[in-house]
Amino acid sequence: MQARNLIDLADMSRGDLEEIIRLAGMIRQNPAIFTDACHGKIMATLFYEPSTRTQMSFQTAMLRLGGKVIGFDDPSNASVAKGESLKDTIRVVSGYADLIVMRNPVEGSALAASLYSKSPIVNAGDGGHLHPTQTLTDLVTLWYEKGTLEGLTIGLCGDMKNGRTVHSLVKTLSKYKGNRFVMISTPQLQMPPYILEILQENGCAYSFADSLESAIADLDVLYMTRIQQERFASAEEYEAQKGVFVLDEAKMRLAKSDLVVLHPLPRVDEITVGVDEDPRAKYFEQAEYGMYARMALIITMLQSRRDAVPETPRWDDARCCQNPRCVTNTEPYVPHRFYEKGGKAVCRYCDSPLDA
Amino acid sequence: MQARNLIDLADMSRGDLEEIIRLAGMIRQNPAIFTDACHGKIMATLFYEPSTRTQMSFQTAMLRLGGKVIGFDDPSNASVAKGESLKDTIRVVSGYADLIVMRNPVEGSALAASLYSKSPIVNAGDGGHLHPTQTLTDLVTLWYEKGTLEGLTIGLCGDMKNGRTVHSLVKTLSKYKGNRFVMISTPQLQMPPYILEILQENGCAYSFADSLESAIADLDVLYMTRIQQERFASAEEYEAQKGVFVLDEAKMRLAKSDLVVLHPLPRVDEITVGVDEDPRAKYFEQAEYGMYARMALIITMLQSRRDAVPETPRWDDARCCQNPRCVTNTEPYVPHRFYEKGGKAVCRYCDSPLDA
Amino acid sequence: MQARNLIDLADMSRGDLEEIIRLAGMIRQNPAIFTDACHGKIMATLFYEPSTRTQMSFQTAMLRLGGKVIGFDDPSNASVAKGESLKDTIRVVSGYADLIVMRNPVEGSALAASLYSKSPIVNAGDGGHLHPTQTLTDLVTLWYEKGTLEGLTIGLCGDMKNGRTVHSLVKTLSKYKGNRFVMISTPQLQMPPYILEILQENGCAYSFADSLESAIADLDVLYMTRIQQERFASAEEYEAQKGVFVLDEAKMRLAKSDLVVLHPLPRVDEITVGVDEDPRAKYFEQAEYGMYARMALIITMLQSRRDAVPETPRWDDARCCQNPRCVTNTEPYVPHRFYEKGGKAVCRYCDSPLDA
Repeated sequence: MQARNLIDLADMSRGDLEEIIRLAGMIRQNPAIFTDACHGKIMATLFYEPSTRTQMSFQTAMLRLGGKVIGFDDPSNASVAKGESLKDTIRVVSGYADLIVMRNPVEGSALAASLYSKSPIVNAGDGGHLHPTQTLTDLVTLWYEKGTLEGLTIGLCGDMKNGRTVHSLVKTLSKYKGNRFVMISTPQLQMPPYILEILQENGCAYSFADSLESAIADLDVLYMTRIQQERFASAEEYEAQKGVFVLDEAKMRLAKSDLVVLHPLPRVDEITVGVDEDPRAKYFEQAEYGMYARMALIITMLQSRRDAVPETPRWDDARCCQNPRCVTNTEPYVPHRFYEKGGKAVCRYCDSPLDA
Repeated sequence: MQARNLIDLADMSRGDLEEIIRLAGMIRQNPAIFTDACHGKIMATLFYEPSTRTQMSFQTAMLRLGGKVIGFDDPSNASVAKGESLKDTIRVVSGYADLIVMRNPVEGSALAASLYSKSPIVNAGDGGHLHPTQTLTDLVTLWYEKGTLEGLTIGLCGDMKNGRTVHSLVKTLSKYKGNRFVMISTPQLQMPPYILEILQENGCAYSFADSLESAIADLDVLYMTRIQQERFASAEEYEAQKGVFVLDEAKMRLAKSDLVVLHPLPRVDEITVGVDEDPRAKYFEQAEYGMYARMALIITMLQSRRDAVPETPRWDDARCCQNPRCVTNTEPYVPHRFYEKGGKAVCRYCDSPLDA
Repeated sequence: MQARNLIDLADMSRGDLEEIIRLAGMIRQNPAIFTDACHGKIMATLFYEPSTRTQMSFQTAMLRLGGKVIGFDDPSNASVAKGESLKDTIRVVSGYADLIVMRNPVEGSALAASLYSKSPIVNAGDGGHLHPTQTLTDLVTLWYEKGTLEGLTIGLCGDMKNGRTVHSLVKTLSKYKGNRFVMISTPQLQMPPYILEILQENGCAYSFADSLESAIADLDVLYMTRIQQERFASAEEYEAQKGVFVLDEAKMRLAKSDLVVLHPLPRVDEITVGVDEDPRAKYFEQAEYGMYARMALIITMLQSRRDAVPETPRWDDARCCQNPRCVTNTEPYVPHRFYEKGGKAVCRYCDSPLDA
């Protein structure tokens, strides 16, 4: 892999991505070969907001490679967080660890951290902005459960508006040929226009459905996500509609025999427990693929060349990003950087357009 | 060992138990031989309520075997706990870990977890119900400090009513021949009738005493436990009686020269600090035996056959267990299962009788 | 090393100290040689108050040596802390771990712990009393960045009154010949008289300065520390003076080309971010030297002879230390011990004089 860090999956070439997917499969087939692959290496997991599931997946991945793990899972009582800048923490921890996995509620914080780190940075979630290893997990699962990333009819059900991992998955799959998307949701929770534009640019077919029942028969893949009750316009609407977006055994009977059902977990009640024993339900396997995906990523990052990689053209600017959740507003020493998109300056950290 | 999981020490055959006790002794004699016995293996410690001491004992045991540890110690801020069912957590974590050690305040939760786990489950405490590795610790300590589990006069002092570990110890020792029990406590805190019935069934002699001073001279083993002030009928009674249940140097002078004093720890003030230097005080050694017992258990569990073991006869039932602390009431998808005892249906998870 | 424990850096001979410094340098040069130096060993980090930075440094050090780590970082929800004495915790944990690193807000607690431990104790901070591994870190950094611990002109800037690590550094460096000290601070935050007495006893020159600008040109080393706003006599004074104690690029231009700038971190705003890129800024390297210093210390402690070392003369006494933060007041079973200094009895645990 050429990239020094994994901030955004979009920074990774298709070749790099497939190399990691293949390595993940090799590890899954022969885990014993990799038992000491990272012997003597240290990974830091810096979780500025708790996410036991993601942190446990990364930690297990490193431990299964024979490496060691340091870090914190909640900086509320950590001296590391007491009035200390992100830069100082990263400078110190990158002197301890060979690889830093970071989760932080501030958008763009992983990219900002990479400016100051002596060790590669993996973005394990920067607020609502990016979460590339979830998408990597989804791709590894599809590759091994469907045998391909092309020519698939993919249903997406639930909250498409607020789901960063669904956006990232759709963007990545839109670059593979022959994929069709069916968005199954309420009008309020539909895919944002910029994603639909990407689908059009890449020549992907897509359609909308207002119930699982009407859409499920055509699908090769069904990607379920949580719909939070508070996302509905009213409690009445929630009560009226929730059933049509819940996957149960009856709806599974309408589906293809080789359907693959995915869910990023944790689920609440959008998939009934009865579906779990259906061999087409792959969401628990998906979590396990996530561990293998992270093992492959860690090996790749620790071998990556340490020199700079050509970046997309961007410039420093005196102007400030106006997104209040952007790292340039919480860490004032970070240089303001922008790139051009559709004639607009866009913040390099949080990808928000700079209003004129 | 035949059993796939360790939920209840009563599930373990006497042969299996003694195999683990012997292995614990081998490890204690030659710890260096076992430094890499679990190399490449992962143990998850899922502690839904904090118990630093138990968790640290398990973690040390695994680390001393060359294995690795993941887990959480308090799920209050853990995404793993956010509205997620026990089943989902166990399905995911058993994809990461080769062995799961679980502590949970809900009775029967370890057994319920074992229904969904791909990896063996060790019960590290399910509410006030079972805590088999504490009993295992006690048995290993007795075996090596007394040289036998038979023919012992065993004093039990303190709160016998509420102490699950004392109940489990008495039940197990009652199966070894020639043991006598002396219960030293207030009437309010005496052993529950069902334990006394077990002693009678197994032909064990037992007697009661109302002070340590009157009972200590006959004992081969003295098992001390905490009496919490609030367990007494009144503050006056507590003040009047607490002295007669405190072990001090004066009382130790009345005891046999080969007495063994045990305590599950932490102690509060039921043993004075002056007793600590007495060579008959073995409660700190007991904690260390606990580490060796857990090392032996971990090795055994990781080698156990993964296929099902004949279970005690039990049946599924539409009726619900009425114990509000039972896992079937907090995790609604768990199948309701009962076994027969004394003509009554008893819940397979929490061992509470189902009232007609 | 002769010492069984590291409670106070003053207990270590100059020979022992330099042996550790040299070992730290060897590890830094050839870290791969030490990857398995502590294979099979367990270190416990018992942090009764959180200090993520110190704990992470110790943990990384042990993990980089191939050892394992157990412990807790905040005993608020830990059963280990529930009414349990320090003695009991230490007795149990020293049965699990080969080395105990302990941080505790109670003064003298590390020394008290060492009375009951089967394993060596490293003091990682006992309240405002001692923090020897920070001083060790500073000495390792100076040794390798200046090439000597002698003949240096050392500026100390910030809060000299309340900084235990600065006191310890000055005491140690005063034993090396030819060192001069320049104290740069407000009158309210100056070095306490007993430190100045030590400097006089050891024949060290020292002077005072009221601004960085006036003092910086002469310095070989500048040791910066935090000044907390609340330490100033008034908000007005803080506003008036804070600028003169902030190190910035302009002041760096007045300094020698081989100045070394140190800071124990975390910094707040006493060094501007612009200084970070100056090659004379060594505070991030200092954190890394701290990891190597702790690696050298751990190796040395695990090899140390387990038998007692001649102690400074001291006696047991019925009288109590009157320092309310002293461990003899929180752990009543600890023997009261004093030594003689300047005709006064001084508490062996917290070094407070016993008032007549």
